[in-house]
Amino acid sequence: MQNSLTKGVLAVPDASDERVGLQRALDHRFQSQTKPPGSLGVLESIARRIALIQKTLTPRIETTRICVFAGSHGIAHHGVSAFPPQVTAQMVGNFLSGGAAVCVLARSSGASVHVIDCGVEGTPDPSWSLHENYFYRSARQGTRSFTTEPAMTAQECDFAMGAGREQIALALKDRVEAVGLGEMGIGNSTSASALFCAILGLNPEEVTGRGTGVDEQGLHRKIAAIKTALNTHSVNGAVYPSRYWLERVGGFEIAAMAGAILEASEKNLPIVVDGFISTAAALVALQLNPKALDVCFFAHQSAEHGHSLILAKIGATPLLSFGMRLGEGSGSALAMPVLRGATRLLCEMATFESAGVSRSEEAPKPR
Amino acid sequence: MQNSLTKGVLAVPDASDERVGLQRALDHRFQSQTKPPGSLGVLESIARRIALIQKTLTPRIETTRICVFAGSHGIAHHGVSAFPPQVTAQMVGNFLSGGAAVCVLARSSGASVHVIDCGVEGTPDPSWSLHENYFYRSARQGTRSFTTEPAMTAQECDFAMGAGREQIALALKDRVEAVGLGEMGIGNSTSASALFCAILGLNPEEVTGRGTGVDEQGLHRKIAAIKTALNTHSVNGAVYPSRYWLERVGGFEIAAMAGAILEASEKNLPIVVDGFISTAAALVALQLNPKALDVCFFAHQSAEHGHSLILAKIGATPLLSFGMRLGEGSGSALAMPVLRGATRLLCEMATFESAGVSRSEEAPKPR
Repeated sequence: MQNSLTKGVLAVPDASDERVGLQRALDHRFQSQTKPPGSLGVLESIARRIALIQKTLTPRIETTRICVFAGSHGIAHHGVSAFPPQVTAQMVGNFLSGGAAVCVLARSSGASVHVIDCGVEGTPDPSWSLHENYFYRSARQGTRSFTTEPAMTAQECDFAMGAGREQIALALKDRVEAVGLGEMGIGNSTSASALFCAILGLNPEEVTGRGTGVDEQGLHRKIAAIKTALNTHSVNGAVYPSRYWLERVGGFEIAAMAGAILEASEKNLPIVVDGFISTAAALVALQLNPKALDVCFFAHQSAEHGHSLILAKIGATPLLSFGMRLGEGSGSALAMPVLRGATRLLCEMATFESAGVSRSEEAPKPR
Repeated sequence: MQNSLTKGVLAVPDASDERVGLQRALDHRFQSQTKPPGSLGVLESIARRIALIQKTLTPRIETTRICVFAGSHGIAHHGVSAFPPQVTAQMVGNFLSGGAAVCVLARSSGASVHVIDCGVEGTPDPSWSLHENYFYRSARQGTRSFTTEPAMTAQECDFAMGAGREQIALALKDRVEAVGLGEMGIGNSTSASALFCAILGLNPEEVTGRGTGVDEQGLHRKIAAIKTALNTHSVNGAVYPSRYWLERVGGFEIAAMAGAILEASEKNLPIVVDGFISTAAALVALQLNPKALDVCFFAHQSAEHGHSLILAKIGATPLLSFGMRLGEGSGSALAMPVLRGATRLLCEMATFESAGVSRSEEAPKPR
């Protein structure tokens, strides 16, 4: 029997010892399961990563949530999107009434949806506050147009990042086992592209796509806006930290997602990064804390021009590739069943011994 | 009001007219949904295909089933697998007790599992028949070794194909909306590779991989066995139909899956083709009825050498790519939530009108 006295004399295990022990236990578990070694491919590495994040041999991704962060962009008034700026607010209503793509896919995957207004233009619809999954966390109704001035102040950026961190705290309180990121913000593919260029030193042409579907002229306007912004906010040759660029050319929803990733990393909660815009938030977070990559699962390869390049630079392998370019967390919702399936394989598969199945060593000798 | 009299004078709609009408309705539906046109990528084409198979604007993939066909192979006694032949029967027990990978993934995806013994070596375990999801449809306990004689007789082949067709009939009776294929048969990657070579005129080296994980010598034995089989069963230069090769170098589980695909095509039931072995069954079915491709969804890109080449030759695009090489229907089970999500998007998404969201035509003019 163990009591406080015997407890006191036990050696305190080192955290890295625990990790090595868990890794060995995972190796043994995978090897003992009724399948050829390694035959589950990526699913094995997913299960392994989640086990190490959750620090258990029996990881769980059963209770999941998609957090959709919405913010308006000053730049959206300058012809960089195929859709008018008011669509950001209209889509918040659509998220709350369950008619948006991410809502449908979240229901199909068994995930709940939170909608966070991080700075949407216009007065919030009074009906929104009746929804318990709606969060009004707006420091300002939309960012400033970043071609001429910083998109947000340091205080506004802190507030938005805090809104993201808060969602992770709420998720943990609700025993959510994985949070998927999602976003809405007309103009935010221009903001994301600007962040990629500024932080990674890329040319706008490499990482600027058509977003919601702008025509050739619209694409040129996006690229021109990004070039102007980079000139406006940098003295030639100077290197600025990612937080600087987040304030200058980012968006409130991007700041919130970066905050969520950082908080999830500190609290060991698996995060599913959606597509192009969410990856910009991940890039900012990884620059602030490289360890944050450990909790990030990249849902899908977006069809948006430049996403594959950015994922490669981050060193991330996307789980799915469906040619989607919608955002909202639609990719995150689709990836959740993959994470669930992977963890269940680790927890529920029979072993060669328990199932009475012969191992490969017993294969017949060739004749 | 419509009565039998007015009914009689209505023009009988032509089947192709109905199809064109449905396609137009689908176009309109996709265009009216709250998303940029085409932004759901592959999910839109999946939903469209299922709608056309089910002949409805509101397709459903809610009730799903994985049919795991098991059969033993004479060739398995000749050192072509990393596992001993008795594993085929042992895995049938594992499927029935729910411990195999496909069982775990099917539970996670909400799919039921049927296990069909199409010719497993050895006396069936008496406990198996207690399971209502077990079907004994064995014409012979294992195929003959195809290096020296035909794997099966025409009658045995008919019986196995019938076992596959029967599962489709059962699925329709149970209101199953999509059937995923799965298989178990130690030695069957050699059989599948032989079919690919024989039907498509490929070299064994192009489409023979390590299956459950044979070593270099085992791989050479697989290739040698296939070359011997092709020589044994063909007079140089002669072209034989796919049914000929199915009998000569196929397997009972492969014949059953081919039968299932043909029946599903005739009955308009969506089919999910799993990996390398299932694709061999699909190839046989497509040679017998090219229209069968219309009901087939290819679950994943297997890690098995040659699968990508075969998929390209068939003109199939796999949904997932997880580096898996397990078979059993593990890929089919993982793909089911994708099909469900795609159909739900078509059925459940709000329209611009219903959600009060502005369309892209209202985007601000550049200034």
